Amino acid sequence: MAAVPKPALARALLQQCMSARLQVKPPEHGAEAEWVEIQRGLVIYICFFKGADEDLVPKIVNMLLSVKLSESESGEYVSVLDLPGDVLIIPQATLGGKLKGKKMQYHANIEKEKGLELYSQFVTLCEKELSASTRCAEAGVRVKHGTYGNRQVLKLDTNGPYTHLIEF
Amino acid sequence: MAAVPKPALARALLQQCMSARLQVKPPEHGAEAEWVEIQRGLVIYICFFKGADEDLVPKIVNMLLSVKLSESESGEYVSVLDLPGDVLIIPQATLGGKLKGKKMQYHANIEKEKGLELYSQFVTLCEKELSASTRCAEAGVRVKHGTYGNRQVLKLDTNGPYTHLIEF
Repeated sequence: MAAVPKPALARALLQQCMSARLQVKPPEHGAEAEWVEIQRGLVIYICFFKGADEDLVPKIVNMLLSVKLSESESGEYVSVLDLPGDVLIIPQATLGGKLKGKKMQYHANIEKEKGLELYSQFVTLCEKELSASTRCAEAGVRVKHGTYGNRQVLKLDTNGPYTHLIEF
Repeated sequence: MAAVPKPALARALLQQCMSARLQVKPPEHGAEAEWVEIQRGLVIYICFFKGADEDLVPKIVNMLLSVKLSESESGEYVSVLDLPGDVLIIPQATLGGKLKGKKMQYHANIEKEKGLELYSQFVTLCEKELSASTRCAEAGVRVKHGTYGNRQVLKLDTNGPYTHLIEF
């Protein structure tokens, strides 16, 4: 008897970029929009499902920063930490959608407050891991991230997005 | 006893765009690279798994062109056919990757020749469906697509990618 797979607790989508620009504050009251920007590196779209908790966050961060998907100058695939490259984190609740008829439903997505909590921990831990890497610190690579709950206005420039899906 | 889900035969990733530009021929022998471009519409990344066949293609095309994920002027979600919007199709074998240690394996991906065959049918059917829609024809919307087996050099401009995953 084959085992029934456990439902996923989080879904991450990875795309490689040459540069990426994300709006973190929409234009309002006459003020211009605010953006963050990264250069060559990794774009991480992240979505948490119901049942995800704090213990899961280090596991995800460790995996996403160490999986060998970034193409080095020599054409070898290395981790974003070893590239070293910038990281842009984008909260993307739509990734949790499940098709029902011709519409998407998001019943498995985590509650908004809990999702914000996990997202914040995720961002903080990514920042910590990159700043703990001597190679990243010397190269001056950056972690940037989107604002949870906002529209994620994104401009992406790739040399091939080399899109990967990882579930936890 | 819960049913064991059948393995997926195809995986599609959808992102909404304001415009997108994809290289379809790399620069070589002194000739410049060739690109295709779409304006507002849908970017479809597609990956076929082993076991996928011709019968699956119309089902996928019908679903992707009719699922209501495109934001209309009035803020309602409609299909890309009803928007109406352009479509950019990108073959993306990496989407079929499965994590093994810190590397990705692609054992479930379809054989290259068969994949090219299904991809070509997929593109042709999308073109046919859009040209059969009076609304799309009147609006002059376009279907563009990447070259199977090439590096998919992509530039994407979004008002929120609103990323969705659909498996078949």
